[in-house]
Amino acid sequence: MTFREDGAAALEWAARYLERVGELPVLAQVEPGEIRARLPASPPERGEAFADVLRDLDEILLPGVTHWQSPRFFAYFAVSASEPGILAELLAATLNSVAFIWRTSPASTELEALTLDWTAQLLGLPDGWHGHIEDTASVSTIAALAAAREATGGRVVVCSEEAHSSVERAARLLGLETRKVPIDDEFRMRADAVDLTDAAALVATVGTTSTSSVDPVPALADLCVDADVWLHVDAAYAGSSWVCPEFRWSQAGLERADSLVVNAHKWLFTPMDCSLLWTRRPEALRAAFSLVPEYLRTSDEAESLSDYGPALGRRFRSLKLWAVLRCYGREGLQARIREAVRFAELFEGWVEAEPGWEVCASRHFSLVCFRRDGSDEENEEILERLNRSGELFLSHTRLAGRYVLRLAIGNERTTEADIHRAWQAIRA
Amino acid sequence: MTFREDGAAALEWAARYLERVGELPVLAQVEPGEIRARLPASPPERGEAFADVLRDLDEILLPGVTHWQSPRFFAYFAVSASEPGILAELLAATLNSVAFIWRTSPASTELEALTLDWTAQLLGLPDGWHGHIEDTASVSTIAALAAAREATGGRVVVCSEEAHSSVERAARLLGLETRKVPIDDEFRMRADAVDLTDAAALVATVGTTSTSSVDPVPALADLCVDADVWLHVDAAYAGSSWVCPEFRWSQAGLERADSLVVNAHKWLFTPMDCSLLWTRRPEALRAAFSLVPEYLRTSDEAESLSDYGPALGRRFRSLKLWAVLRCYGREGLQARIREAVRFAELFEGWVEAEPGWEVCASRHFSLVCFRRDGSDEENEEILERLNRSGELFLSHTRLAGRYVLRLAIGNERTTEADIHRAWQAIRA
Repeated sequence: MTFREDGAAALEWAARYLERVGELPVLAQVEPGEIRARLPASPPERGEAFADVLRDLDEILLPGVTHWQSPRFFAYFAVSASEPGILAELLAATLNSVAFIWRTSPASTELEALTLDWTAQLLGLPDGWHGHIEDTASVSTIAALAAAREATGGRVVVCSEEAHSSVERAARLLGLETRKVPIDDEFRMRADAVDLTDAAALVATVGTTSTSSVDPVPALADLCVDADVWLHVDAAYAGSSWVCPEFRWSQAGLERADSLVVNAHKWLFTPMDCSLLWTRRPEALRAAFSLVPEYLRTSDEAESLSDYGPALGRRFRSLKLWAVLRCYGREGLQARIREAVRFAELFEGWVEAEPGWEVCASRHFSLVCFRRDGSDEENEEILERLNRSGELFLSHTRLAGRYVLRLAIGNERTTEADIHRAWQAIRA
Repeated sequence: MTFREDGAAALEWAARYLERVGELPVLAQVEPGEIRARLPASPPERGEAFADVLRDLDEILLPGVTHWQSPRFFAYFAVSASEPGILAELLAATLNSVAFIWRTSPASTELEALTLDWTAQLLGLPDGWHGHIEDTASVSTIAALAAAREATGGRVVVCSEEAHSSVERAARLLGLETRKVPIDDEFRMRADAVDLTDAAALVATVGTTSTSSVDPVPALADLCVDADVWLHVDAAYAGSSWVCPEFRWSQAGLERADSLVVNAHKWLFTPMDCSLLWTRRPEALRAAFSLVPEYLRTSDEAESLSDYGPALGRRFRSLKLWAVLRCYGREGLQARIREAVRFAELFEGWVEAEPGWEVCASRHFSLVCFRRDGSDEENEEILERLNRSGELFLSHTRLAGRYVLRLAIGNERTTEADIHRAWQAIRA
């Protein structure tokens, strides 16, 4: 294998893929087991050429790929692996740094701290918070709740019915009980219904998965401060919008939070995985996680970021975030966020103006929840028809007992024409 | 930015890096804070060229990189990001698949299951085990112990004094107590000293971090079966050696294990991060982790691998493992493993033959533990002098109270000349 030749072929494949991804069916049009059945049941005895791998990626795997990079991927939360982010992943894999302690990768450790500070400045976060990267928000939440358990001794995690399922999963992992608080008619946690008895943490969500609703963080912070309960803010999706001052209304109360998660791989144009976790109580995270065996002891007086989360081995994730922040700058990030929100406003307007269709939740960022007048089954059929068409990919939720469609905008390749095309397909 | 041009520059940087990594100081020769101080304190307002990122990687970050890819990286466990693995990471970042449920990435989900089956065949594992990928062994251990807690109701994790620190970290996260079993004079868990009262799991290590000792798994399995305790085998490093039949003596008893972790990013030539977790009791992992909210419910009758571990979002990690297995084949993997072990044998022989030097633990795979006659301080000085020289990077441990040097071989670029050079430097 020659790295330069095979690399050139891989790069050309990537370039072509990014050019044509908008022409591919967004949702993979395969049945369970179909991809696997096309691949050999056993590994090769002798090495094959990388060109064979690339060929099979194209011919066998690609039909089984759901294209998260498609401009008409509107399901869950739409994401983008930007070009600088992709190339930085190539570089990170080349270096193959494993930053479990400072000396095993000073550059990775220090760039991670720096890029988290840069991002904190871009998002207008309170000064002086400690930031590091976990793979996903699920794991960031585990880290925050482990610190909360350590700091408070509480046994209950309080969140709303609309909190992400990862909160309950994290609580279960930590042996904590989950207490769900009812929501108001805007899908926000009802501060008047919060019970903090035996609570270790309250998880407030800014930008819930179902509707992007925003919990009343200032009122919740009052309760947490009074009861000495850890306040974790889950802004995995919506936190990226704070790069634009006009969305910082949803930051109210944040200065009193103990920890915050924002996923750069969601709406900050960074490839999976890059979940940013900040805390104003780093000593509580260290108390929960630090454990230094003899073979990792050094005389270096430097921070090791593995002291702040479950994993010891840490890859060089900050490199891609740094590349994105450098190549886009504050202005580039703002322009992309604003464009996504503008598209969502447009789409929302079309739905509102169309007889027989209804917007089902207030739109705060780039997510629109809507449905057609009719039964849940009819709406579910619409969704399945659209997704089977390959034209676009939508997901759903259930609001006040009703089946509701979700259109989430966030891919940087999405254009106004894509939104038009989506609406034409949906109405059809 | 043009992806093809910037990509070509990134690729050329990667190719040049891999060519010259052997000439760079292995351990970064910087002081804490030095790298960060050379970078701007704030992010740019306007986007910059990717070429600027590449320049700063080279000029500012590179001196702060500890070169895990160096052929003279002998610390901890030496690893390799092979060329097919690196290029596959470029492709995975390009696709940016997020496989939290099957339909969000059928190809990623099915290739992950397939590559784990392929690897199971290569390693000679029992038939029919369920495999999936976690980021690190720390998280694989968390997943296995969470399943153990769920399946047994026990409150204690039993492991030897030589078990990896991630076991105690995982237990603490899960709210379980750790009970350490004493070791024999070969650094193996003493089966006669095991107390399984209230135990959820026993973690046996095949290839401990300090010395690569092998716990007596058959005897431990007897105890676990009798007491209905989950047996987790940590073969994060040594498990890769099983691709060669001559190392499968260390697999004895494995067929009665409930779960097994092997890190492909350690000694299977796959870039960070790629920790392989197998279990013969997948239903226990699902019971510990599965929780499907409305917005992830589909009618697909297909397995979602996020049901088997803490993270919901999962990147396309199997692509790099697949590329490595394809491009190296069984023979290529065997040749690399055997060469590393041969080098370790050579080095061990030189140490044994040299007056004033001593091998401090039996060598089973590619790790040699040794020291110079003299005080701990003298040996620590030797280590610091070597690491400061940049010639090679060693780490240490403490065995029976004494400071011991560790030379771990595992980088595929290491040649016999590198081992010679290391020994010359160490003796000097």
